[in-house]
Amino acid sequence: MTVAITSAFDSGNIRVLRQEGAADFVLAINKDAGGEFFQWFHFRVSGARGLPLRLRIVGLNASAYPEGWPGYAARISSDRQQWVTAPTSFDRDREEGTLSIEVTPASDHLWCAYFAPYSMERHHDLVARTALASGVSSRVLGVSIEGQPIDCLEMGEGGAHIWIYGRQHPGETMAEWWMEGALEALTDPAFAASRILRSKARLHLVPNMNPDGSRRGYLRTNAAGANLNREWAAPTAERSPEVLAVRNAMDETGVMFALDVHGDEALPHNFIAGFEGIPSLSQRQIDGLERYKTELCRQSPEFQVKMGYPVAPRGRANLTMSTNQLAERFGCVAATLEMPFKDSADLPWPATGWSPERSKALARACLAALAATIDELS
Amino acid sequence: MTVAITSAFDSGNIRVLRQEGAADFVLAINKDAGGEFFQWFHFRVSGARGLPLRLRIVGLNASAYPEGWPGYAARISSDRQQWVTAPTSFDRDREEGTLSIEVTPASDHLWCAYFAPYSMERHHDLVARTALASGVSSRVLGVSIEGQPIDCLEMGEGGAHIWIYGRQHPGETMAEWWMEGALEALTDPAFAASRILRSKARLHLVPNMNPDGSRRGYLRTNAAGANLNREWAAPTAERSPEVLAVRNAMDETGVMFALDVHGDEALPHNFIAGFEGIPSLSQRQIDGLERYKTELCRQSPEFQVKMGYPVAPRGRANLTMSTNQLAERFGCVAATLEMPFKDSADLPWPATGWSPERSKALARACLAALAATIDELS
Amino acid sequence: MTVAITSAFDSGNIRVLRQEGAADFVLAINKDAGGEFFQWFHFRVSGARGLPLRLRIVGLNASAYPEGWPGYAARISSDRQQWVTAPTSFDRDREEGTLSIEVTPASDHLWCAYFAPYSMERHHDLVARTALASGVSSRVLGVSIEGQPIDCLEMGEGGAHIWIYGRQHPGETMAEWWMEGALEALTDPAFAASRILRSKARLHLVPNMNPDGSRRGYLRTNAAGANLNREWAAPTAERSPEVLAVRNAMDETGVMFALDVHGDEALPHNFIAGFEGIPSLSQRQIDGLERYKTELCRQSPEFQVKMGYPVAPRGRANLTMSTNQLAERFGCVAATLEMPFKDSADLPWPATGWSPERSKALARACLAALAATIDELS
Amino acid sequence: MTVAITSAFDSGNIRVLRQEGAADFVLAINKDAGGEFFQWFHFRVSGARGLPLRLRIVGLNASAYPEGWPGYAARISSDRQQWVTAPTSFDRDREEGTLSIEVTPASDHLWCAYFAPYSMERHHDLVARTALASGVSSRVLGVSIEGQPIDCLEMGEGGAHIWIYGRQHPGETMAEWWMEGALEALTDPAFAASRILRSKARLHLVPNMNPDGSRRGYLRTNAAGANLNREWAAPTAERSPEVLAVRNAMDETGVMFALDVHGDEALPHNFIAGFEGIPSLSQRQIDGLERYKTELCRQSPEFQVKMGYPVAPRGRANLTMSTNQLAERFGCVAATLEMPFKDSADLPWPATGWSPERSKALARACLAALAATIDELS
Repeated sequence: MTVAITSAFDSGNIRVLRQEGAADFVLAINKDAGGEFFQWFHFRVSGARGLPLRLRIVGLNASAYPEGWPGYAARISSDRQQWVTAPTSFDRDREEGTLSIEVTPASDHLWCAYFAPYSMERHHDLVARTALASGVSSRVLGVSIEGQPIDCLEMGEGGAHIWIYGRQHPGETMAEWWMEGALEALTDPAFAASRILRSKARLHLVPNMNPDGSRRGYLRTNAAGANLNREWAAPTAERSPEVLAVRNAMDETGVMFALDVHGDEALPHNFIAGFEGIPSLSQRQIDGLERYKTELCRQSPEFQVKMGYPVAPRGRANLTMSTNQLAERFGCVAATLEMPFKDSADLPWPATGWSPERSKALARACLAALAATIDELS
Repeated sequence: MTVAITSAFDSGNIRVLRQEGAADFVLAINKDAGGEFFQWFHFRVSGARGLPLRLRIVGLNASAYPEGWPGYAARISSDRQQWVTAPTSFDRDREEGTLSIEVTPASDHLWCAYFAPYSMERHHDLVARTALASGVSSRVLGVSIEGQPIDCLEMGEGGAHIWIYGRQHPGETMAEWWMEGALEALTDPAFAASRILRSKARLHLVPNMNPDGSRRGYLRTNAAGANLNREWAAPTAERSPEVLAVRNAMDETGVMFALDVHGDEALPHNFIAGFEGIPSLSQRQIDGLERYKTELCRQSPEFQVKMGYPVAPRGRANLTMSTNQLAERFGCVAATLEMPFKDSADLPWPATGWSPERSKALARACLAALAATIDELS
Repeated sequence: MTVAITSAFDSGNIRVLRQEGAADFVLAINKDAGGEFFQWFHFRVSGARGLPLRLRIVGLNASAYPEGWPGYAARISSDRQQWVTAPTSFDRDREEGTLSIEVTPASDHLWCAYFAPYSMERHHDLVARTALASGVSSRVLGVSIEGQPIDCLEMGEGGAHIWIYGRQHPGETMAEWWMEGALEALTDPAFAASRILRSKARLHLVPNMNPDGSRRGYLRTNAAGANLNREWAAPTAERSPEVLAVRNAMDETGVMFALDVHGDEALPHNFIAGFEGIPSLSQRQIDGLERYKTELCRQSPEFQVKMGYPVAPRGRANLTMSTNQLAERFGCVAATLEMPFKDSADLPWPATGWSPERSKALARACLAALAATIDELS
Repeated sequence: MTVAITSAFDSGNIRVLRQEGAADFVLAINKDAGGEFFQWFHFRVSGARGLPLRLRIVGLNASAYPEGWPGYAARISSDRQQWVTAPTSFDRDREEGTLSIEVTPASDHLWCAYFAPYSMERHHDLVARTALASGVSSRVLGVSIEGQPIDCLEMGEGGAHIWIYGRQHPGETMAEWWMEGALEALTDPAFAASRILRSKARLHLVPNMNPDGSRRGYLRTNAAGANLNREWAAPTAERSPEVLAVRNAMDETGVMFALDVHGDEALPHNFIAGFEGIPSLSQRQIDGLERYKTELCRQSPEFQVKMGYPVAPRGRANLTMSTNQLAERFGCVAATLEMPFKDSADLPWPATGWSPERSKALARACLAALAATIDELS
């Protein structure tokens, strides 16, 4: 039986450059539209049961985040349900940056990905199931360049509008796992924070802002090559209809609190990036963000505030990014949540690294923190 | 909230021609590559909760099987798990053949399809799960035009080679539901027929021969516009690599019995089409087929032999079709199993019509009949 | 950690006679009320993880069916879901009949039983779930000596009354697994035979006729020491209220076909015992029974007619047994279905021996055979 | 069909005093051994589908907690999975205290209980499943009066010994639901607090200290009539072997923190009772308990500290109660967690009242609070 590699499926991305042995492949990652970014990979290896499989992805020094590879471990699965880490090493000096994955599969099929994938089929299952829950509405805010709906789940009877959206960057699949966790929590009456939030606010959740990039196996852009989180100042129907649809809907309701859910390739931590550089920054906003981060530290031992992005100086915020744009536009507290592709160094679990389950647990903590601070955020 | 229709997902197929009211849409089905066939539809309606939704698909007199529409009921689902029939009528005199579906959705999303869909994601789940079962091998026989693998699950320690393959016509999704039922049965030791079959034969199952057409929402062709079940005499790597891969693998093992799983648009029955018109027809083959059909009648009250396709006269078989080709090529018994898109008129269940669950139950019956007759088929 | 054995739970039955080593126990089975029968055992061993456990049950030459032990393998489970066979041997010459079970548990708890248990909690779950299915009624025919309900599930719109009842002998737990399979099949519209049966008959299913014996961990009797299948000629409220309740209900409806579901300790086969010795035996009854058995052979490769009980001579039937009593009383076809405690020698699967899953599969076959022959049985 | 009431099953408890109409019953609760306590009820009503059922439980002014009835709603279920509140009222002036439950069942069976039951079968499932998790040991600390094992699940590599035990009072089933939630959390690597706790401590969990009372349908005592939470000063093998076994095991390990899980009949709140009255009370203990309660308020919006039991004066603690005994005996922080039988008035959810799911969620919060404070408790 010959070993075969395929990526012709939802969010698949790999290219076989050459084969150097029965189970020894040299691979490359295809670029997003626009040709600027690449880092996400997802493929299936078949026919390698019992063989010492060696997968080398090369040319990674040119990837979007070369610092993402040291200390990173690829995720593998034989049943597409449980994803674990594979023995992985990175050598920046070999073939312009080589990630080596070595594993002997126990089954005839092995799936391998940058992070546990979240397919559009699962997205539709999530939307269908959530829309059937008591008190939930679901609406289509607009359509992507390829005609996929931008789905928004809504619930709650309160007056404050909370917007939570994820996967602007399609390769950051932990963002949609996080959204799945959040939607399950918000429709679970036994999760007390959800009852508080639903009584005090109207929540709007967009689990996937970039369905085209998701389906295509991209890291950062939509089908037109736009990095959606650089489109919030002036989104257009041609280049970034996904952002335009969401921002327009936000303009209709106003925003009291916004959370933009992401993954970070390099830092092995969960952290929040704020909006400190916006021109109209108020003390109320600063305090609110600080209060939320402090509370989130309490709600999750996997969240921390020491490590993170450098803070932009006053007035120097990039207003094309959603968090800055929304904080400036609505005078609200807005936060960018970043989860690691690597493991969390604060409380590591090497068997899986950061994972879908941990992303979902963090979503519950984020909602609990929000319920605890909502009265101080508005 | 406006009503939105989308089909930009796995196996989606619809086109909105015009909207005649808040919840009143006139629709058309897109054609397969090659422009010859259309009949499969699959789309999502959002924002119609509580509205008397009216969906009219027009131009159906030109569809592949216009006789498929009278007596047919569209399938709908709000959770993508349970699919039921919707009130449906057909008027051949209106807008060149109009299928009208009228339903008031109870949820914000309604999925509507020609038959319960079977996505490529579910295909990969099926392949992964089955490959992990004891004694099962899975190999890639080749790749589709778009690079998707032609997966083949194999098991059994016996000498006779049994080939079972489905979904040459991608819109006949009941074929892959049937395959799922067959694979579950064959990996279930409590299903006694599977133990008989696995001890007496080597089984090769190809659950989906046309992944490109499946993903694209086609009725009958692959990405190149080829009707795969007219390619068995002379498959080519350019036009029908899917058939070439499977036929080559069959040539390597030989074939003792072959079953090709299909859906039939017009006839409200389960039936088997044979190979009576092949040049080299033997009495052994005739008897074997007859014996199998008789036994299948016993194993399933939903199978029958009265209704079916006209039988080709001796020597007039179309050898481009798999069943004829294989019976001629290997001197074996080969059968084309047809399941209805409509309900089975022999034992109707109007709430769902013919369904995934009934397809899976029929698969068990087909395997039981095979176990009961295998000694007489070789 | 010391090794501890307990049987103080639903259907538990064992007694520790002595301990001969850290993980070496000599055990005995407690007798049913009345002191006549013992064979069923069910207990938990704790604290033996990683130890070579040796369990010897002695005195078995005096058990109800000493011929049940040669060739038998005890069932074990670590999760109470999956039950497999344990290495087991029988020595009739040691300590008046010793069954030795040797296993090294991988978990801190090991459950061990004569056959996979079926608890009263599971019974109530089954009754609750089935009663919620469309078209199903559930009623209480009477109460056991200890006040437990004799539950009867009913469905079907036809005129012929079919009665199916099991577990008169409480240690024959495969009978209730069989009933669970039957009830699931009868409430599954995809199982075609169920639709036939429900359209042609009214079905009455009593999944457990002996709840007191079940809970107490008995082999054959109720709480009063009555062997219920010897009580059908003259049941009494004092000694056999369970039989009285069921027989009275049958008298109200009449019986067209009756099936009494059992397990057999000695024979490694599935078979049916009939009513050939009843005084009023008719050719119609003989033919009907024969027809049913022939059809059941077709529906299940695990059923056979060669091996079974000796047939009583004409007029010599024991009318205290339900099958004889009902055939005589109603002039109907009545059958006693026996499944093995051992493996089925006709199509063995040593990993589990005869099992819950195979019992459930046989129930489907029995219903399919009934649907195929119902018109000939009345 | 006549309406039938039964309680002859695990934890069943009711007595029919008289029937006043087809669906109108007057009922009483049986007393625990010793004749002092009664409050727990659990029974099945059959045959009342579509009937306006009226169930009156009388004589409740003499129950253990008469103040438990005003504002309380009985729990009902038709599938034994989902338990909801039934319309319930209490009239202390009618028949010496009458609780009236009025409901029209939609199914032929209705289960009714003081709180969602937790059967011994479910207990064994829990113990089996948990014992199979990675790094978990399970041992039997002793046996109850009726020979049931006192199971203890253990995990963690740290040096501090944490003991968590529940259901000393068998009718407080929320305690074992809580334990199920705790065990699931502690074996879920995605629950970060569990990784902290398992690295810093050795955890010992006894999910059910009173299996005999549980099975018998008691409120407060074991089979000998002992209220186990009044036996900790001088437990005996004859009267309270369950406490003796646990306390002896604690003596072997020592105790750094202890949590005793209960339900409270009267107060509609979650709260913690401490050990303030013990003779050797230290400031460290006071601070530790305060710190834990404060943190638990943060971790669960359903926990509060305003309402609770009166605090015993210094030196006046009842040392027969476990929390006092352990705090005194080990100088540790010990806490009695009380959950309501009623709804939580702090964040009510009338559809279910306090529930299994909320109990399990609170368990996670309690573990999270412990992980956050463990360094301050020792």
